[in-house]
Amino acid sequence: MSSDLLGSKFTDDDTTAVNTIRTLALDLGRSSARDGTLFGSPRCYGQQGRFINRIRIHMYTANSGHPGAPMGMAVAAHVLFSRVMNLNPKNPHWVNRDRFVLSNGHACALQYVLLHLLGYKVTIDDLKSFRQLDSITPGHPEVGVTEGIEVTTGPLGQGFANAVGLAIAQAHLGATFNKDGFPIFDNYTYMFTGDGCLMEGISSEAASLAGHLKLGNLIAVYDDNHISIDGDTAIAFTENVAKRFESYDWQVLIVSNGDDGFTDIFEAIEAAKKETSKPTLIQMKTTIGYGSKDQGTHSVHGNPLKKDDTINIKQEFGFNPEEFFAVPEATKKIYGAVGEKGAKTEAAWQKMFDEYSSKYPEEAADIKRRIAGKLPDGWEKALPTFTPSDAAVASRKLSETLLGKLSVAIPELMSGSADLTPSNLTRWSNAVDFQPKENGLGDFSGRYLRYGVREHGMGAIMNGLAAFGPNFIIPAAGTFLNFVSYAAGAVRLAALSHLRVIWVATHDSIGLGEDGPTHQPIETVAHFRALPNCNVGLPLLRTQCDQDHVLTINRSFIQVWRPADGNETSAAYYMALTSTHTPSIIALSRQNLPQLEGSSLEKANKGGYVLHDAADADLTLVSTGSEVSIIVEAAKALEKKGLKVRVVSLPCWEIFDQQSKDYRLSVFPDGAPVVSVEAYTTLGWSKYAHESIGINTFGASGPYLKVYEKFGITGENVAAKSQQVVDAYKKAGHFVVSPLNKVLL
Amino acid sequence: MSSDLLGSKFTDDDTTAVNTIRTLALDLGRSSARDGTLFGSPRCYGQQGRFINRIRIHMYTANSGHPGAPMGMAVAAHVLFSRVMNLNPKNPHWVNRDRFVLSNGHACALQYVLLHLLGYKVTIDDLKSFRQLDSITPGHPEVGVTEGIEVTTGPLGQGFANAVGLAIAQAHLGATFNKDGFPIFDNYTYMFTGDGCLMEGISSEAASLAGHLKLGNLIAVYDDNHISIDGDTAIAFTENVAKRFESYDWQVLIVSNGDDGFTDIFEAIEAAKKETSKPTLIQMKTTIGYGSKDQGTHSVHGNPLKKDDTINIKQEFGFNPEEFFAVPEATKKIYGAVGEKGAKTEAAWQKMFDEYSSKYPEEAADIKRRIAGKLPDGWEKALPTFTPSDAAVASRKLSETLLGKLSVAIPELMSGSADLTPSNLTRWSNAVDFQPKENGLGDFSGRYLRYGVREHGMGAIMNGLAAFGPNFIIPAAGTFLNFVSYAAGAVRLAALSHLRVIWVATHDSIGLGEDGPTHQPIETVAHFRALPNCNVGLPLLRTQCDQDHVLTINRSFIQVWRPADGNETSAAYYMALTSTHTPSIIALSRQNLPQLEGSSLEKANKGGYVLHDAADADLTLVSTGSEVSIIVEAAKALEKKGLKVRVVSLPCWEIFDQQSKDYRLSVFPDGAPVVSVEAYTTLGWSKYAHESIGINTFGASGPYLKVYEKFGITGENVAAKSQQVVDAYKKAGHFVVSPLNKVLL
Repeated sequence: MSSDLLGSKFTDDDTTAVNTIRTLALDLGRSSARDGTLFGSPRCYGQQGRFINRIRIHMYTANSGHPGAPMGMAVAAHVLFSRVMNLNPKNPHWVNRDRFVLSNGHACALQYVLLHLLGYKVTIDDLKSFRQLDSITPGHPEVGVTEGIEVTTGPLGQGFANAVGLAIAQAHLGATFNKDGFPIFDNYTYMFTGDGCLMEGISSEAASLAGHLKLGNLIAVYDDNHISIDGDTAIAFTENVAKRFESYDWQVLIVSNGDDGFTDIFEAIEAAKKETSKPTLIQMKTTIGYGSKDQGTHSVHGNPLKKDDTINIKQEFGFNPEEFFAVPEATKKIYGAVGEKGAKTEAAWQKMFDEYSSKYPEEAADIKRRIAGKLPDGWEKALPTFTPSDAAVASRKLSETLLGKLSVAIPELMSGSADLTPSNLTRWSNAVDFQPKENGLGDFSGRYLRYGVREHGMGAIMNGLAAFGPNFIIPAAGTFLNFVSYAAGAVRLAALSHLRVIWVATHDSIGLGEDGPTHQPIETVAHFRALPNCNVGLPLLRTQCDQDHVLTINRSFIQVWRPADGNETSAAYYMALTSTHTPSIIALSRQNLPQLEGSSLEKANKGGYVLHDAADADLTLVSTGSEVSIIVEAAKALEKKGLKVRVVSLPCWEIFDQQSKDYRLSVFPDGAPVVSVEAYTTLGWSKYAHESIGINTFGASGPYLKVYEKFGITGENVAAKSQQVVDAYKKAGHFVVSPLNKVLL
Repeated sequence: MSSDLLGSKFTDDDTTAVNTIRTLALDLGRSSARDGTLFGSPRCYGQQGRFINRIRIHMYTANSGHPGAPMGMAVAAHVLFSRVMNLNPKNPHWVNRDRFVLSNGHACALQYVLLHLLGYKVTIDDLKSFRQLDSITPGHPEVGVTEGIEVTTGPLGQGFANAVGLAIAQAHLGATFNKDGFPIFDNYTYMFTGDGCLMEGISSEAASLAGHLKLGNLIAVYDDNHISIDGDTAIAFTENVAKRFESYDWQVLIVSNGDDGFTDIFEAIEAAKKETSKPTLIQMKTTIGYGSKDQGTHSVHGNPLKKDDTINIKQEFGFNPEEFFAVPEATKKIYGAVGEKGAKTEAAWQKMFDEYSSKYPEEAADIKRRIAGKLPDGWEKALPTFTPSDAAVASRKLSETLLGKLSVAIPELMSGSADLTPSNLTRWSNAVDFQPKENGLGDFSGRYLRYGVREHGMGAIMNGLAAFGPNFIIPAAGTFLNFVSYAAGAVRLAALSHLRVIWVATHDSIGLGEDGPTHQPIETVAHFRALPNCNVGLPLLRTQCDQDHVLTINRSFIQVWRPADGNETSAAYYMALTSTHTPSIIALSRQNLPQLEGSSLEKANKGGYVLHDAADADLTLVSTGSEVSIIVEAAKALEKKGLKVRVVSLPCWEIFDQQSKDYRLSVFPDGAPVVSVEAYTTLGWSKYAHESIGINTFGASGPYLKVYEKFGITGENVAAKSQQVVDAYKKAGHFVVSPLNKVLL
């Protein structure tokens, strides 16, 4: 049955299926609008976008939703999901499934409708709860919330770059594990994208790299509907998109009848699959307001469909306009067949994998380990420890040593850099570049990615690599700490999506010296310390699907690490690698740092600890990274003057904050003032310290020791200021309450 | 004399001049290296970049600098500055000067050498202090530090987009002020750019918009040398750059002999000037290591020039290898003539402007006012004030009203949006779009910019608009607050460069509701509150030039405003417009906000103030923006229960922090606990509050009141938590010290 239903011929039943998708989307909007909420996103594109704007202009007096993107992309979605994609709705985590990314995430009504029809755990009631609190159908698709959603999208352009990451992951795993006759990893990555995504620079970065890498497994469908929120794209987006993508070395195919060209779309996708050495952009022209009486006219650009028009559409589609959320039998039949076909496809793959397991037991065991989300046994032995007699080393150099050792212990570790390899020290000595064989510079089994000067694209590509599945790839990549900010949008989504990606952020302060204020981070760490990674557990409650291996969320925040020495650098990597659902930023110094007396991997794993204790202390000094050795120096000077000084190292605030209150208060007890020292903004430090020494201006260009001196971040100045603090607090005579001693959490 | 010297013919003297540039750059590197510092940037590109990497690999044992970019781009720079550009080194602020942007800012040695030769206030001693602390020749070019530098560059791609902004500024001013026979504003914007800039997404965004806008006054010279830090561009950047720029509708010209093709470069620039309806990219092929024995070979890609090679180069150039910082007479003669020509050019312009002034006194007066950096008299009357009986209004709507009134009062105000016009409400009712006349959608006199979905490009273009000169354009533009993060790199440079740009950041919290966590800012405001805008006064000390009107820096920080009602919104705009050297982010609500009892424009101008006072208070509640009315509600509930509660509104931390300590302590006095409430991360609030209520996770999709309830940001919950705090503090019985009562500044 399924083969007849799902061949390359399209019948009236397919038209019915597409109209089902359209009317369901229409109903979602209506349902949502009736609840006083909005259908679609104010940040959406296409007809839907215009509608929203109009709603707003009319002060929300409109009472019907409008399914812009679903109307436009319904045929493409139907062709793709019913005829092309390999997926098994009963097992959304099957590793060799084709991946789908809705880069224009505001069109998620389309995706939710499809997931429902395909038999994922999205019910009609879930559709009715579209954009309602704690539903599994939020305003933009969120991975972990809704079964079948691969990546979180909405912020434009992110999904585009995620898809590039997913495609790299497949290419890498195929090159690593496939054997003659055993295409264990051969899935495609499909992506829908709109004008908004293509205007964002991040998609340019990712597209240029995808073309360079010759990712033939990546197929993008571009909804070319000439409309964005501000109006016709003629007002701001008149570039020749096809030519631009050809300049990136993509194959570009034009489908002129995206509204109803079932066969043309199908054939374009087949042609895209045949082109194995180029990604493909299918530029699909769609008519704005397709189905409406006013389709293709200017009036429908800027106006919602009138009620009678909506009724007409449903009638023309052969649907009862009074009935909502109706799914005709013919549609159910098609999507039932898709499910059956999918189950068979996975079963066949499973059979192949069983044979593979007996022929290639070692490789199969590795694949199984990765599916289980486990790191190789004993990997942690690769983490070096240090004693104070070991040489002073820059923490970026310590990171280089670690990456070298970890690359052997953890085969899923994939490193890279945004064109700063010799500065970030992210490439282990015998690394192979991930490159298309044709260019002679590496191959797809390579584990070192040359991202180019494309930080934002790099961040979102890393997110895609991590989203392929647990432990298939653990991406790490370098840039200067200051330029992680270029990728703020991607870092945010890594945190929101619970993805284990590791930023190797070198040159982490004024310690970079001569490059000056344009390159010296001041606000950067405060920014990322303020970024949550949370709603832990919430996705578990909201999703009924079995995602245990995905949702065993063991960390609840982004981690910003700033190790002070070798032991702390090992701890940073240990926590980054074992925090399976948390991105980490490891801030590393350009300059050499001494190995500290009192540090250890175990202590640093708590995020903060007492490096040097003193009974009845007059003062606690606290710092991070390269400034810890400076407060040690200050403490020694103060002790010579008879003060009792405690020294605290706080390499990772987020992990420290997760420790018990007792522990935290043992590190920052009542009774004496706490002074923080960090070569950054002081913003945020009042959480731990009564008084702060830092830099609340921009930095300066010069030899780094002179720059440190200019800003008073020296042992001598810290000692002098601290003495002032101790004297003033003693004089005031008030009981000194620890900043950690809060009433509210 | 000058006309002979500076015609379109190039002689041996020009070769000498170029070789002077090259050897001076060589000497800068050598001088810098001798001081133990590095020549060039670790984030630099071209031969120089490779050299730096190599230096690092050799652990700084190298003792000679290498002038990669200067060697490669010396001819282009010489042709441009000696033959093409209209500039007067004796008056670097002449408004109709051609603008030059070094987007590949790491090559600033080239620019410093040129500035010296041209007669700007950059001495040989300044060149010798390259990359030294507090010199006027820092590691990357900084506007305000070195005379003749138009914009701060280094973070890649920023300069490219700045140049687009500068070009828009000229086009707009020309369309606004030029009259038949009076081309008051007709300057060109020239830009040098490298591979790194072109890989960054921000340059794609800006280039696409520049092509759309048909900016014929923008000319970019692309140093196509096929080398970036990681090695040959073959490893990550193989796109067809020419085709890409053609897809943006740029004119692309190829110069194949950039090393010595004086005439070809000159002719290409002339051809670029002739194309008035397209920006031009001159793709200039340069040979890596030009001048070296190994030029164009792989060895020179990755190795510094050897000492004997350096000697050879100088000898081949006809220079004494033992002599440093030598400038031959022939070179002095050429650049002396350039200076003379420039002075004459400005004088001729000045004569024309005098005639213009008598024919068009009104326009001339406006131009003079703008040059003086003054807002029109009485503009502030456009700011509305409100009383509690006025209707509740969303602050984005208040902003719309303000922009409408200000657009009349301040003709230099230029608004825009990243394709969210109907959401940001940034367009006044009768606004004309800034568009090329040809597309029929507006013209260059228009003051509304359709930036497209290009936040990062928008930010850097705004920086360029503001950098044109004081009060020529005050750019304001909208996006959702959450997406200002996409532009973090540009916001940072606005702050570092002291540029008055205004971000209209609407949908500023979970109050945006259904769009959900992908669109709800949590960390955003903390990030920008942590960003400094400083070193106030320092540029004055470092620069000897007369930049009084540029350097009257009257604010010393980026301003993040979150107004709570109409009066505070007026205050936000008042301070944003009068802070002539500070960017502002004005965070505005989607939802309606009541007009508060106790607010006023004057009080809000202090950044924070007591909205509601109480003697012998038990508690101070503090908040910003949409949550202020929530703490007012909580305070009322607590007062009913007999507590004495003070209420503080703190719409702008940065401005509040600039008030006297007495004033600040009057707002946050000792004696009672302070509780902060804000629908963002609590990070940073410990600076003012003992206890904080906020959101340290991501937000949620749903109707906004339900989302507020979910996160406990309600009058009821705030009252309950505050009661807990008051009880606990009373029980503890310690003297409550104000968080503002610090020993250290």
